[in-house]
Amino acid sequence: MSESNRRIAILAHEKFPERAKTATGIIRYSDDEVVAVLDRDRAGDRISDHLSGMQDAPIVESFEDVEGEVDELVIGIAPIGGGFDDSWRPDVRAALERGIDVVAGLHYFLNDDEEFVELAEKHGAELVDVRKPSDDLTVSQGVADEVDADVVLTVGTDCSVGKMTVSLELMQAARERGIDAEFIPTGQTGIMIAGWGNPIDRVVSDFTAGAVEEMILEKGDDHDVLFVEGQGSIVHPAYSAVTCGILHGAMPDKLVLCHVAGREAIHGYEDTPIPPLSDYIDLYERLAAPVHETGVFAGAINTSDVGGDDEARAIVDDYSDAIGVPATDPIRFGADEILDGLGY
Amino acid sequence: MSESNRRIAILAHEKFPERAKTATGIIRYSDDEVVAVLDRDRAGDRISDHLSGMQDAPIVESFEDVEGEVDELVIGIAPIGGGFDDSWRPDVRAALERGIDVVAGLHYFLNDDEEFVELAEKHGAELVDVRKPSDDLTVSQGVADEVDADVVLTVGTDCSVGKMTVSLELMQAARERGIDAEFIPTGQTGIMIAGWGNPIDRVVSDFTAGAVEEMILEKGDDHDVLFVEGQGSIVHPAYSAVTCGILHGAMPDKLVLCHVAGREAIHGYEDTPIPPLSDYIDLYERLAAPVHETGVFAGAINTSDVGGDDEARAIVDDYSDAIGVPATDPIRFGADEILDGLGY
Repeated sequence: MSESNRRIAILAHEKFPERAKTATGIIRYSDDEVVAVLDRDRAGDRISDHLSGMQDAPIVESFEDVEGEVDELVIGIAPIGGGFDDSWRPDVRAALERGIDVVAGLHYFLNDDEEFVELAEKHGAELVDVRKPSDDLTVSQGVADEVDADVVLTVGTDCSVGKMTVSLELMQAARERGIDAEFIPTGQTGIMIAGWGNPIDRVVSDFTAGAVEEMILEKGDDHDVLFVEGQGSIVHPAYSAVTCGILHGAMPDKLVLCHVAGREAIHGYEDTPIPPLSDYIDLYERLAAPVHETGVFAGAINTSDVGGDDEARAIVDDYSDAIGVPATDPIRFGADEILDGLGY
Repeated sequence: MSESNRRIAILAHEKFPERAKTATGIIRYSDDEVVAVLDRDRAGDRISDHLSGMQDAPIVESFEDVEGEVDELVIGIAPIGGGFDDSWRPDVRAALERGIDVVAGLHYFLNDDEEFVELAEKHGAELVDVRKPSDDLTVSQGVADEVDADVVLTVGTDCSVGKMTVSLELMQAARERGIDAEFIPTGQTGIMIAGWGNPIDRVVSDFTAGAVEEMILEKGDDHDVLFVEGQGSIVHPAYSAVTCGILHGAMPDKLVLCHVAGREAIHGYEDTPIPPLSDYIDLYERLAAPVHETGVFAGAINTSDVGGDDEARAIVDDYSDAIGVPATDPIRFGADEILDGLGY
């Protein structure tokens, strides 16, 4: 997967845009140029008929209808279970026959599909499974703090509170302020949006911190600020290992605490209440300190389930009071308070 | 690998006993019956010529010389790098030809060796690579606290401070007090001693807690106390993810803080000083609490580099004062203070 200036077509059959999180994430946040969306239910429309304020391109019936130069076909949807839907096969086949790389974040690996492997070899195309960790990962050296960039990590009260979205919004808003900001992906959707990265929750547990460190070292001297996508929560019964590895591997200078309005228990672990918000700040800061001193400089709260802006504003204010730093919902109100809190 | 009552031969060529940590660990702590040690440099000796107070067996030249019934041949040594030494091949071949299982914890997998796979199939023997995680691991459900047994986890100030040894010593000492205690292994040496277990530092990072939980659930209703082997340290730049996953996956009722006398920086990360000991207690307890309340009830300190018992005793006393709970060096002085501190 090349890292910049790709021209990409995104497969999102029957799901664009509401049920195509990866596709819309790429359109919204990626540096790449989207040249077409494949959705047989909306062929003939354009992206701008459904999403505003983002890049535009035609929506087409199949890969055969994609015109002009294309570098990659990206599978921008995932069925429950992460399987490969055989109705996508003609599109993948058509791309490979034109020598075009195909990128997927499915549990089903394209590289395990005999037909695709054969076609890719024959036509000089690459099959990229972003869920498959690289073979050359290793343990952390504890040197991520040596890069020139400021490292900002989003940390959460729970999983699924919006850490990836907040990181991407902060990158965009920082760029609008003229800061050379980059996004460091750690999960499959983030990796597909960024076009590179290590799937931290899939690596060997001993290499968790090392796999983050490798990415910080790769980008850290080329930018002013890195926004690192966090995962899980430090008190999550199942995923805290990944969270802890990212915290120590990234050696962040600043943290942004992410939360979702109204959540009172760990998602899927309803017997485990969310601790007081101030406990999170204390835990994240004290756990990080022996490896690299850091602090929670700002907060982000997801108010998408809240009806009106007035109510959302009150929730944001309460959240900011509870954690003692500037906070906002960057999707609803923009990211300014957070960037101000971070000092950018 | 069967879980109990095995009759085992241990391969330890040219390294028994000083450089055969796995071999001596099995002889010292395992429930299994050791029927022979293979060491071509000491053939004709007995275990008791080199180690006292443990089970005894003859030391032989090769597997051909092992007499009587044997269930397993265990590779009880590991060269630097974890490779397979071809001088061991005749012994492994001889075992497989007698239909006897072979167990190894090497980076080199027996199951990737064509000759061994063929012989194992032909003679109905099993090749067990304990470093290879099981395929059916998954995320933690957060239910390890539902087992009947008390769960005691050894946690550390650093890696290589003796957590496995302390756990095994506590299991033995508890059994001597009439308590039905079991050891829960989490690393390759512990797994080879116990004869079962998940290599937690090798599992997919998302499954770190789940792989520990699975073992607690398997043993937790059959014993009074489980002593869980901890890994790494919660402030280790590279390995904290594994530590954190074990802490939340095992949901321990009690912790034993393990340290090594004189260590002032994280081993191999000399820029990272060991924080004050009281910080560890606070961090481990507060990090665990949202998932399962726990406390540091006792401490263990490794004084093997200290010359005299008087000096060691003073170090133990200082350590106990610093952490505010009973402590000792269980190898030098026995485990009584720790068991007392744990309330057994």
